[in-house]
Amino acid sequence: MDFGYDERTEELRKQLLDFMDSHVYPAEPVFLEQLAAGDDPWAAHPPIMEDLKAEARRRGLWNLFLPGEHGAGLTNLQYAPLAEIMGRVGRLAPEATNCAAPDTGNMEVLSLFGTEQQKKQWLQPLLDGEIRSAFCMTEPDVASSDATNIGTRIERDGDHYVINGRKWFSSGAMSPRCKILIVMGKTDPDAERHRQQSQILVPKDTPGVQIIRSMNVFGYDDADHGGHAEIVFDNVRVPVENIIAGEGEGFAIAQARLGPGRIHHCMRAIGMAERALELMCRRANERIAFGKPLAEQGVVQHWIAESRVKIEQARLLVLKTAWLMDTVGNQGAHTEIQSIKVGVPEMVTWVIDRAIQAHGGGGVSQEFPLANLYAHARTLHIVDGPDEVHRRSLARRELKKYK
Amino acid sequence: MDFGYDERTEELRKQLLDFMDSHVYPAEPVFLEQLAAGDDPWAAHPPIMEDLKAEARRRGLWNLFLPGEHGAGLTNLQYAPLAEIMGRVGRLAPEATNCAAPDTGNMEVLSLFGTEQQKKQWLQPLLDGEIRSAFCMTEPDVASSDATNIGTRIERDGDHYVINGRKWFSSGAMSPRCKILIVMGKTDPDAERHRQQSQILVPKDTPGVQIIRSMNVFGYDDADHGGHAEIVFDNVRVPVENIIAGEGEGFAIAQARLGPGRIHHCMRAIGMAERALELMCRRANERIAFGKPLAEQGVVQHWIAESRVKIEQARLLVLKTAWLMDTVGNQGAHTEIQSIKVGVPEMVTWVIDRAIQAHGGGGVSQEFPLANLYAHARTLHIVDGPDEVHRRSLARRELKKYK
Amino acid sequence: MDFGYDERTEELRKQLLDFMDSHVYPAEPVFLEQLAAGDDPWAAHPPIMEDLKAEARRRGLWNLFLPGEHGAGLTNLQYAPLAEIMGRVGRLAPEATNCAAPDTGNMEVLSLFGTEQQKKQWLQPLLDGEIRSAFCMTEPDVASSDATNIGTRIERDGDHYVINGRKWFSSGAMSPRCKILIVMGKTDPDAERHRQQSQILVPKDTPGVQIIRSMNVFGYDDADHGGHAEIVFDNVRVPVENIIAGEGEGFAIAQARLGPGRIHHCMRAIGMAERALELMCRRANERIAFGKPLAEQGVVQHWIAESRVKIEQARLLVLKTAWLMDTVGNQGAHTEIQSIKVGVPEMVTWVIDRAIQAHGGGGVSQEFPLANLYAHARTLHIVDGPDEVHRRSLARRELKKYK
Amino acid sequence: MDFGYDERTEELRKQLLDFMDSHVYPAEPVFLEQLAAGDDPWAAHPPIMEDLKAEARRRGLWNLFLPGEHGAGLTNLQYAPLAEIMGRVGRLAPEATNCAAPDTGNMEVLSLFGTEQQKKQWLQPLLDGEIRSAFCMTEPDVASSDATNIGTRIERDGDHYVINGRKWFSSGAMSPRCKILIVMGKTDPDAERHRQQSQILVPKDTPGVQIIRSMNVFGYDDADHGGHAEIVFDNVRVPVENIIAGEGEGFAIAQARLGPGRIHHCMRAIGMAERALELMCRRANERIAFGKPLAEQGVVQHWIAESRVKIEQARLLVLKTAWLMDTVGNQGAHTEIQSIKVGVPEMVTWVIDRAIQAHGGGGVSQEFPLANLYAHARTLHIVDGPDEVHRRSLARRELKKYK
Repeated sequence: MDFGYDERTEELRKQLLDFMDSHVYPAEPVFLEQLAAGDDPWAAHPPIMEDLKAEARRRGLWNLFLPGEHGAGLTNLQYAPLAEIMGRVGRLAPEATNCAAPDTGNMEVLSLFGTEQQKKQWLQPLLDGEIRSAFCMTEPDVASSDATNIGTRIERDGDHYVINGRKWFSSGAMSPRCKILIVMGKTDPDAERHRQQSQILVPKDTPGVQIIRSMNVFGYDDADHGGHAEIVFDNVRVPVENIIAGEGEGFAIAQARLGPGRIHHCMRAIGMAERALELMCRRANERIAFGKPLAEQGVVQHWIAESRVKIEQARLLVLKTAWLMDTVGNQGAHTEIQSIKVGVPEMVTWVIDRAIQAHGGGGVSQEFPLANLYAHARTLHIVDGPDEVHRRSLARRELKKYK
Repeated sequence: MDFGYDERTEELRKQLLDFMDSHVYPAEPVFLEQLAAGDDPWAAHPPIMEDLKAEARRRGLWNLFLPGEHGAGLTNLQYAPLAEIMGRVGRLAPEATNCAAPDTGNMEVLSLFGTEQQKKQWLQPLLDGEIRSAFCMTEPDVASSDATNIGTRIERDGDHYVINGRKWFSSGAMSPRCKILIVMGKTDPDAERHRQQSQILVPKDTPGVQIIRSMNVFGYDDADHGGHAEIVFDNVRVPVENIIAGEGEGFAIAQARLGPGRIHHCMRAIGMAERALELMCRRANERIAFGKPLAEQGVVQHWIAESRVKIEQARLLVLKTAWLMDTVGNQGAHTEIQSIKVGVPEMVTWVIDRAIQAHGGGGVSQEFPLANLYAHARTLHIVDGPDEVHRRSLARRELKKYK
Repeated sequence: MDFGYDERTEELRKQLLDFMDSHVYPAEPVFLEQLAAGDDPWAAHPPIMEDLKAEARRRGLWNLFLPGEHGAGLTNLQYAPLAEIMGRVGRLAPEATNCAAPDTGNMEVLSLFGTEQQKKQWLQPLLDGEIRSAFCMTEPDVASSDATNIGTRIERDGDHYVINGRKWFSSGAMSPRCKILIVMGKTDPDAERHRQQSQILVPKDTPGVQIIRSMNVFGYDDADHGGHAEIVFDNVRVPVENIIAGEGEGFAIAQARLGPGRIHHCMRAIGMAERALELMCRRANERIAFGKPLAEQGVVQHWIAESRVKIEQARLLVLKTAWLMDTVGNQGAHTEIQSIKVGVPEMVTWVIDRAIQAHGGGGVSQEFPLANLYAHARTLHIVDGPDEVHRRSLARRELKKYK
Repeated sequence: MDFGYDERTEELRKQLLDFMDSHVYPAEPVFLEQLAAGDDPWAAHPPIMEDLKAEARRRGLWNLFLPGEHGAGLTNLQYAPLAEIMGRVGRLAPEATNCAAPDTGNMEVLSLFGTEQQKKQWLQPLLDGEIRSAFCMTEPDVASSDATNIGTRIERDGDHYVINGRKWFSSGAMSPRCKILIVMGKTDPDAERHRQQSQILVPKDTPGVQIIRSMNVFGYDDADHGGHAEIVFDNVRVPVENIIAGEGEGFAIAQARLGPGRIHHCMRAIGMAERALELMCRRANERIAFGKPLAEQGVVQHWIAESRVKIEQARLLVLKTAWLMDTVGNQGAHTEIQSIKVGVPEMVTWVIDRAIQAHGGGGVSQEFPLANLYAHARTLHIVDGPDEVHRRSLARRELKKYK
């Protein structure tokens, strides 16, 4: 149980913190200005983002998330503190370093399960930050946290698969830069529970791919990250070569993807909480109410102290989870992955909510990044399986010990 | 302590419920469509709103909030259950019945303190729903829950007052239909604490009134209600007749306004919570997860039961507060007004948050009204004085009993 | 929905408050001293209790809980504020006025369902405060919140019933003053769900009644109120005349008893919370820490304000419930009875816990009544059905509205 | 940041777990029986305790808490998992292994600051488990979390010090086995804030030492551990040699003692929570309500999952704190010590409370150890400084980062 940051981690942390200070924080207002200046928010891609990407790549801060030969080759434990730092400016830093979801998960899947052809065609431009991608999993009509509910069909027809179904919250898919979709659907509804599903590559411009609308998160359209598309697949035909790892492998691929996906979310969420706490402290030091700074008011002190205690605990559990994933594998870390999946969102929404309160009206508005952080943190209670599903599973495992 | 609904209340409830069913609920999707169809969201005023207003007025469901001769003449206790009903569709029902903030407060102020000329020029068109108005109180630079902090100056210069300052969260002011601003500022910074402030009428088109931007609330611009403007007053000159009730009366006017304003917010918030609970129940009955409806899952049942218990308690305290305001006056109901000001937001954000969770991804999006309800409910912890200010004051009063 | 205190209530409140001030509060230390002076805590009956009873009876503050001819004839709404006052000194005031559980429920059952003979023999001495009684319902081996689980058997054998079973938490039964037990058991396990149970009178000195031990509540033995007995009924024979209202009526009698029982608990709990809040305020005014009274420290103010808000809301819901029971009957008030059954304990444990914290070490000890109050308040989450059972039932009712 | 259990820790854990299984758990009912059989609870010392001590010592499970030559010489990180195991049976295991507070702190103080004579006379019999001791710090009349408030005087008079003052919650002092008191008092009220206090050894049989009473904790007298004494020191004279480390060193000694004291409490509290969770799971698996085991009811699953998540997080923070104390010293671990001081009690009271609820009436009684565990866990919010003091200090440190 050694969570210490090793030499490489310390070195990368130093470099990343330096990049944050010199480039990312200063880019925040510029990004918002460039975004506001555009006509069509959905087409908008503020030039500063490409500047950041170039700079990050030049500095070797690129694809840090990806283990193995295609990426930086870091362990989860090495990546964790870096993802935390990125989470502080979640709107810029992950994309700037090519570590933004859902591309991260898609690259991981392709690097693990892709054919040479799939890697060449889709993984490489993703690794180079030239295109973006989406993952089409969640469906509006069913509780898709239970994969057996999935309604989308992927049916073989000669040399093609034909896809029919409706997906939503396909994050990133609204952007013109998004070129490729990974779609989860059923190839064999009669197979054993976890062999019914497959995943398949669908170029976004394939006929029959209909972008219906973008789902907002609270009032945010997240246009700068390609929004969250609702997509209808209406007799969409792709060549059989587009299947990933073969028919029936969809569930296994999803599992392989979700472990790292969940911990990445949690790592970044720790950074969100740290940012909110920093803002709360700064505000408390500056703002005067009833004759003294908020910093001297007991209730605000209570929020700050509790935030520190909650964040420290959550970070340690995330680090332990990362360490376990590295040492005993995702399966062996299952309990811990579920634990952070419910514990971290609870912590981070609480911290941000208190930071909002300390900022008064400014806190709920665009004046500070807090309301936006809150909206995203709130979704962590839902994405990749709602809290309740993970708690149920955690409880069952615990109960089994005493049967 | 009789909170029963009297005959007139029952009659109006019946009429209002009928109007909701026949016109307001069906108008919800139409409103969103018309809104989406417009080019400039800030100029948008979906025609259906005027239809609703005409219908409501025809039915006598008009200016229900306003006591006295200019309005429906209801007591707070009579109005409470009506405001609750309106709160269920807060985006349409209050405006449809000309009971929407901040016009309600502004009409109340003008009807209580306005000169004949002020009433004729501004109150009458407001009462007729022909124009809208804004209240410029909160300032970005100070904790304006403490009125002595206000930085905006109103200085006499011959037959005019000259206004300089910066306000934000002036709700409604972005709309072209908003014609008049009531501005709070200091006429005499050296006077006794509560005699420094004055309120003054400023037509929005007065030179020097600069609309800077609109403040979002969790990503929502609330354009359909005129947003929440940041406004700079740069040497704005208005005739001395525009002062309301005289110099030094600003604090007293604010107090007179805030009591009813706070209870109206709370009444509507009860309706928001009831709507959220209804949606949560409907969802729970319909949605299947892990082989049974959410309705049969213990955690969801817990949320529903707790929601019912919390709502019932909150409603009773709001009704008691209304009854006290009617019988012993706003001053005598001070403790209760503060109690609902902290208790109701806590309840309503909790209930809506749980309803969101029961809806999964749809809950945070535009698919259901819940995320929007949440954003507005969340602001209730801040507007008209943050929770902490009211708790402090409540505690002091309680502590004094045992000194 | 008129919760006002009518003339009789106001008069009784005045008299009861006067009795509390002149006799009950002064008796608190005396009671503890007399209790400590005795050798056998289980036999102890401090003489001051009989003084208090005599005085209360002299003042007409007697059997206030009991509607109808045998008692004071008050409605639930009239009794509610009186029970609240008694709850402030729950160890003395209820017994002093002959309004202490479980005698209250037992008297209610006998007055409603008892034969003339049963009334003469048991109700009369209970009404006169000459003996005490116990109610044997809960069983250690089953979840007795579900009456169909009850394992105790009551079998007819000629002119007698023979009782076998094990009960616990039979409050009061350890006291030598306790003479009569009302026992719930099954006469016909094969009957329809709610016709299996009967209730029967068992004099405590009947052969076969074995008092096993007394159950503590946290570390309190509650010896001054006869503790909470575990009792084995081993072939206990009583005449058939001892059955109450006939075979199969047990469930219906329990229902008739539980409505008033639950609201009485809640009424007194409001008084417990008020007492705790008063103590918290007094302590906060007096205690200095870090250079200023606790009363000026924001976190303590937060506790006090929240306590006031929570208590007010809970009291109103209790009053509404009482009013409903009076106007539409216990069945019509079912939702509200369940609502207070979960809402009030949550409130009162929170308030007392915060009061304890404000008292530091003294708070958890016998120096203040708070730890004792907490222990009793905590049991309210469990007695008469745990929170979870009531929440489940509340949710089902709510869900049914939208099916 | 390496929290792994090293070889020695693993070995000791194995031995201790074995001792728990073979001796401690089986001793629980025996201990209670022997305790109940005694006449005078204050003199009671169940023989099984001496058996356990002998066995533990034989096994080398002795003085594990004490670093340095006098004890087992473990680091905090090595001791942490052992203390956790002891905490599962806090009434027996710590004393059995001579690791029970307050002796632990007293031994630590004597080993660090004692003279040879003091060590010979008092440390040695404590190390041998022959006598017990108490620490007289807290005073009823002041907020003693602020050491400058202490009212007890220690005045030099020739070759003696004369002690006057009132202390309470001197845990253990009621036992006849308690022979020595370490008393904190002021030698120089005019000195600099943290040089006013001294600590001094006072044999319990010194004239003028008056044991007034024992303070209960939620009804528990804790007689088996010598209770929590209120003691008046009335002109108590002891030789000047009894001072520990010299005049003015009292505050520094207290600090040296409190760091380890707090972490020991927290370590054991983790064990308490684990025990409660185990009991909750066992109960949930066995108990049937409404036709299915509690284990299948969503709300109970929620409690269990949340317990697991909270415990894991708390344990990691305790381990990190231990590791920091070992590597950078108590001062460097100050923030973390305060963090666990507020975070762990919050966790453990929550877990135990939910376990109580899952046990119904049995949960609040002596039938299960839960109510007793709760009472002790609840005091952790208060002892060694209430939560509020630590939160305030944590917040100040955090706020300073951004000044």
